[in-house]
Amino acid sequence: MAERLIVVGGDAAGMAAASQARRRRDRDDLEIVAFERGNFTSYSACGIPYWVSGVVPDREQLIARDPATFRESFDIDIRIRHEVTGIDVERREVVARDLADGREVREGFDTLVYATGAVPVQPPWARTDAAGVFGVQTLDDGAALLDWLEREPRPRRAVVIGGGYIGVEMAEALIQRGLTVDLVEQSDQPMSTVDGDMGELVADALKGIGIQIRTGLSVTGLEERDGRIATVVTAEGPMPADVVILGLGVRPNTALAEAAGLPLGPTGGLRTDRRMRVPGVPGVWAAGDCVETLHRISGMPVHVPLGTHANKQGRVAGINIGGGYATFPGVIGTAVTKVCDLEVGRTGLRERDARAAGFDFVSVVAESTNRAGYYPGARRMTVKLIAERPSGRLLGAQIVGWSEAAKRIDTLAVALWNSMTVDDMTALDLGYAPPYAPVWDPVLIAARKAVDALAGAGR
Amino acid sequence: MAERLIVVGGDAAGMAAASQARRRRDRDDLEIVAFERGNFTSYSACGIPYWVSGVVPDREQLIARDPATFRESFDIDIRIRHEVTGIDVERREVVARDLADGREVREGFDTLVYATGAVPVQPPWARTDAAGVFGVQTLDDGAALLDWLEREPRPRRAVVIGGGYIGVEMAEALIQRGLTVDLVEQSDQPMSTVDGDMGELVADALKGIGIQIRTGLSVTGLEERDGRIATVVTAEGPMPADVVILGLGVRPNTALAEAAGLPLGPTGGLRTDRRMRVPGVPGVWAAGDCVETLHRISGMPVHVPLGTHANKQGRVAGINIGGGYATFPGVIGTAVTKVCDLEVGRTGLRERDARAAGFDFVSVVAESTNRAGYYPGARRMTVKLIAERPSGRLLGAQIVGWSEAAKRIDTLAVALWNSMTVDDMTALDLGYAPPYAPVWDPVLIAARKAVDALAGAGR
Repeated sequence: MAERLIVVGGDAAGMAAASQARRRRDRDDLEIVAFERGNFTSYSACGIPYWVSGVVPDREQLIARDPATFRESFDIDIRIRHEVTGIDVERREVVARDLADGREVREGFDTLVYATGAVPVQPPWARTDAAGVFGVQTLDDGAALLDWLEREPRPRRAVVIGGGYIGVEMAEALIQRGLTVDLVEQSDQPMSTVDGDMGELVADALKGIGIQIRTGLSVTGLEERDGRIATVVTAEGPMPADVVILGLGVRPNTALAEAAGLPLGPTGGLRTDRRMRVPGVPGVWAAGDCVETLHRISGMPVHVPLGTHANKQGRVAGINIGGGYATFPGVIGTAVTKVCDLEVGRTGLRERDARAAGFDFVSVVAESTNRAGYYPGARRMTVKLIAERPSGRLLGAQIVGWSEAAKRIDTLAVALWNSMTVDDMTALDLGYAPPYAPVWDPVLIAARKAVDALAGAGR
Repeated sequence: MAERLIVVGGDAAGMAAASQARRRRDRDDLEIVAFERGNFTSYSACGIPYWVSGVVPDREQLIARDPATFRESFDIDIRIRHEVTGIDVERREVVARDLADGREVREGFDTLVYATGAVPVQPPWARTDAAGVFGVQTLDDGAALLDWLEREPRPRRAVVIGGGYIGVEMAEALIQRGLTVDLVEQSDQPMSTVDGDMGELVADALKGIGIQIRTGLSVTGLEERDGRIATVVTAEGPMPADVVILGLGVRPNTALAEAAGLPLGPTGGLRTDRRMRVPGVPGVWAAGDCVETLHRISGMPVHVPLGTHANKQGRVAGINIGGGYATFPGVIGTAVTKVCDLEVGRTGLRERDARAAGFDFVSVVAESTNRAGYYPGARRMTVKLIAERPSGRLLGAQIVGWSEAAKRIDTLAVALWNSMTVDDMTALDLGYAPPYAPVWDPVLIAARKAVDALAGAGR
């Protein structure tokens, strides 16, 4: 009789695991059942802001593979609108509710992949029944928001709460749709995923397209009128709002795992080993936004919800379940985003992270251009490097610039991944031609500056 | 008394060495004299095609630092239009001719930097006095060409001989100026710096803007009429031409070095140690397009004339002359270029190089997109990887694509520099957001495909 794999959660991590396992083991050897609470499988949540702004016209474009594809091409018994309500590790059984008719189903498993993703952080003040308050986590969230934006009376004033990636992207999307937008951030800068000096460049770009930025401001409540959101209450007074976006981050969705006795780590995410096994619970695997992972530079566990990690972790779990061998070696915190035309990239530790991890370090900021200075379209590119003292080992990097800036963080990410020193980096053989870089690449200029800073030359 | 440094050649390598040495040692400690045959210092020869096309309007934009700047800001006695005609290593003396008045000067040195650059390859048939035949090596070449193009009778038919970077860039520049252009290449593909399968994409782009490509064709002579170029004679018959560009590559300019008894390597370039010292000749250094260097992947000496290496090597020599410590660890053959809108990047070994170096390897070509498939402006990106068998170590990579494709070769260059295996590369934490990449980055997709090829899965 075939072994049975149950996947809890049908998005990136779960379906990557399922398809990799299927690739290595056919139906006679491995039966695969996947439960997904929502209507969709394997979609790009990261694409939602672009769908809201209208840049991506159709929701369907955000779906990588629909349930029918998984059924037909991968022989996976995918059950959408089925919410798993319990996992019994001893009895090797999950309980799920069919959201269509409320009926409960029980299914046994030999192997389980826990891939429930993340849930929005929701402080007490954000719990409201008022219409017009939205998260931006699922395609269903996006559909509800778009419906609200197009319904009469048309919302005109938006308040976006939270200045991280999703908040900033949503603020821009709503400006593009013609709303007025206030962006409220509790800390002293939006996009605190980069250091303050780099974050200022982002703030300038946001202001430049008309977004009102309110930093250092705490939200304390949401007030409604006739069932519709009317006011965001803050420490500095009320802000009128016809639509509110909650972009307060997410936390690992571990309720079921906790109830089943699966081990959680200090970040609140599930613990796994390098092969994505849940330690101490044979035959149970976990992957994606619900797990914590190793930060390779700080050596600390971190929770980094991001589709690219979810896909990789799911793939690793699936290869292993399929009888192969693969490991997930952790992350270094690489991220890129586009804010208006401004491009932002980061990898590794920010100054505050390096300090928290106990590193002594220097940090330098180097101004250069994305192309040879004389080549048309040359724009300023700012590269920040953080390097351990006295070793010179790279600890982190940030780039802010315009055309073709953000993805250059990958060059630094690979240097960081390989524990390069800034001194070694000055010799790197990077591509040079006038349309792409000055003869000293911006990355090399920054590395040279870091070498000087380490030498105390200060020049 | 101050020590005396003489620099032979006032372009990238020589002036980088001079300014780095000056940065560490002041005039009382080190006197610096630099001889430059031409009229300019530290200019971007790589920018000449863009000046010819009109993309860069002024010659002055191509000059990074002029002689006056070196004199005033760096206290360097730079003598332009002075051609060094002899170096006497025993007597520590150089002989130079002032091209203005033919007067000969002799200057003693304690330390010498040999940085004479490269000279165009010129087969016997290319030696002609006919007007209208140009190399593209110096700003003076560029000025002469532009003058010819603007003089009556206006040239209409161009033949570019040689399909490397400079030939391809010049062919595009001349099409942009409204000439008809034939590009003649002796081998079976233009842009043979990438493998044939990738080169076809480049050839298609060139044809797309109206360039006639003639591959596998040998030129045997140039014919003039009334002192003007009239015909390019080939193995397949004559080609009419009003202007001819010679893009046959360059070789190290070592005539003076040979005469002085400095050691040359198998590529014809000067040999140096890691600190850019000429071995066996104390106090003599060399850097730039006149030297050969180590290819870190093949382990062989190579001659790679490129401004970025010249600058780095000059910097290393200058730091060492200045009393610091620096080494140049070799190159891996990274290069980028733009052909029309097509972007091309390469690093490491091509298939033929890997074969010549004795490697067993697999090569894979992966098609993907530069952005999430649903994001506007997503374009095809082709990534080729060559990986050692059975180790999986990356040996080389090539990228062809459109917007934001070429510089992504740097990601692969840093992986290659650090001897990563394609298996390790599948876990790399690269930046992901819909405007910049699909959730599986093109580089990661290619790495996965290479892993499969190594496993013989063929899937």
